Amino acid sequence: MSYLDRIATCRRWDPAAYRPFTVDGQTLGRVSHGVAQRLAGFPDVFVVRDDSVALAPGLDDFTSRSRAVAEVLGEMKARGEMPHWRGEDYPVQLRWGEAPALKIERAASALLGTRRFGVSMNGLVRGDGGLKMWVATRAATKQTEPGKLDHLVAGGQPFGLGVRENLVKEAWEEAGIPADLAARATPVGAVSFRCERPDGLIDEVVFCYDLDLPADFTPANTDGEVESFSLWPIEEVLARVRDTEDFGFDVPLVIIDCAIRHGLIAPGDPDYQEIWEGLRMAE
Amino acid sequence: MSYLDRIATCRRWDPAAYRPFTVDGQTLGRVSHGVAQRLAGFPDVFVVRDDSVALAPGLDDFTSRSRAVAEVLGEMKARGEMPHWRGEDYPVQLRWGEAPALKIERAASALLGTRRFGVSMNGLVRGDGGLKMWVATRAATKQTEPGKLDHLVAGGQPFGLGVRENLVKEAWEEAGIPADLAARATPVGAVSFRCERPDGLIDEVVFCYDLDLPADFTPANTDGEVESFSLWPIEEVLARVRDTEDFGFDVPLVIIDCAIRHGLIAPGDPDYQEIWEGLRMAE
Repeated sequence: MSYLDRIATCRRWDPAAYRPFTVDGQTLGRVSHGVAQRLAGFPDVFVVRDDSVALAPGLDDFTSRSRAVAEVLGEMKARGEMPHWRGEDYPVQLRWGEAPALKIERAASALLGTRRFGVSMNGLVRGDGGLKMWVATRAATKQTEPGKLDHLVAGGQPFGLGVRENLVKEAWEEAGIPADLAARATPVGAVSFRCERPDGLIDEVVFCYDLDLPADFTPANTDGEVESFSLWPIEEVLARVRDTEDFGFDVPLVIIDCAIRHGLIAPGDPDYQEIWEGLRMAE
Repeated sequence: MSYLDRIATCRRWDPAAYRPFTVDGQTLGRVSHGVAQRLAGFPDVFVVRDDSVALAPGLDDFTSRSRAVAEVLGEMKARGEMPHWRGEDYPVQLRWGEAPALKIERAASALLGTRRFGVSMNGLVRGDGGLKMWVATRAATKQTEPGKLDHLVAGGQPFGLGVRENLVKEAWEEAGIPADLAARATPVGAVSFRCERPDGLIDEVVFCYDLDLPADFTPANTDGEVESFSLWPIEEVLARVRDTEDFGFDVPLVIIDCAIRHGLIAPGDPDYQEIWEGLRMAE
């Protein structure tokens, strides 16, 4: 077991199992052949060919695209074909900061393989005992990966909310961190990955933050999504990442990035370059 | 002028102008068509085809490959075809930590487009006045990019020397930093790029370090390669990176990486994701 195993999980997908999903000629997602067959039942919205799925050319602006796709997804939901429906929209775009081509229900991003964005915060405590990191245990009732170890704060980036605003909101909901404390978090970069999961193809860019927390601060979950929190020496976090699959599948990427930035994984490690390269999706 | 202009300089090359340079079937470099024609004059060492340049198959280990290529390069040097000869060997490998396939004279890495490795250190001073960074001015007598602004410490990674050992050596030679102080530098990640320069194709991975320096430390060059040093507020460094071409062509990547890790370029910047993606070579 190694860091590279955790990274491999986040890069595992079979290009032959998908067709590009295009909007106005640009590939914005990837659709499995099975999903493509289902989408072929909505020819006013999806132009399905053997090697591609395109949004119908008449749908040429954000509003018409979003509405047409929402109608299809609503119909699939009514048939019971859309588990994990969230009632929250994600923008569809390749780069944060671009104008989205459309917005779609969060649960559909894996179905269409569209890029999604998230935010993740390392909760750190620095002191005489070295660097420590807060680790969350996901509630047993979570839709995805119940009971797994997790970041102190992490969340998807919904349509219409800034990254920092989302971080502050999630910090309160997930860990009871007051807004003035959460606002001190430092953006430190990103990680990205594309992989197959039970709900579809996940293509994600995660913006990473570090927050130095006072030694006397204790997180408290407010939304029922976290079972407990505990503060671990960073070496224990890294050993658990390296040697087990106890963390949520994509959590290791952000933790490894944090370890690299703090010099806890160094060029003397024979895997260093491959680990570093693996924190970003291969295009 | 923007960070993206600096990044574009480090990613500009024309794949159609090169043929892959392969060793034992693996692409380890890229050779221009003009260089390929010159290498065709050494058929015992280079098998030159219209679409590739391969090391002759009989050369099947590190020693025989290194010796054969050194003979060719020596002959080219005698003819005056190898400017900037350094008398220092670089390993040829795609990843640091792998066994190199061969070693070659440093000046030949651009000729053959082989990957090279380097180390670069941000010299930082933290205090009430905010974050400051030491900036060097390259000596007017340097072979490459004389007079340009530069890192406090940076250097190529020669064959047979560890990354940290090289950093400590360069820190003394370039900036007069004692070994015990240089040893406190933290490895913080890497940047990589591939681009055309006057001397050939540069394909490089740079291991980045941050070193917090005491406020009363003043660097002093010992090898004649630096004209002067000055300590700038990081905001001034970033403005100069963004708005001018005063820094050596690849220096901005490491500085931008440092700025991203310190939250000085943040996801609210519409170019954030593209900047972050641009700090690593496209494969």
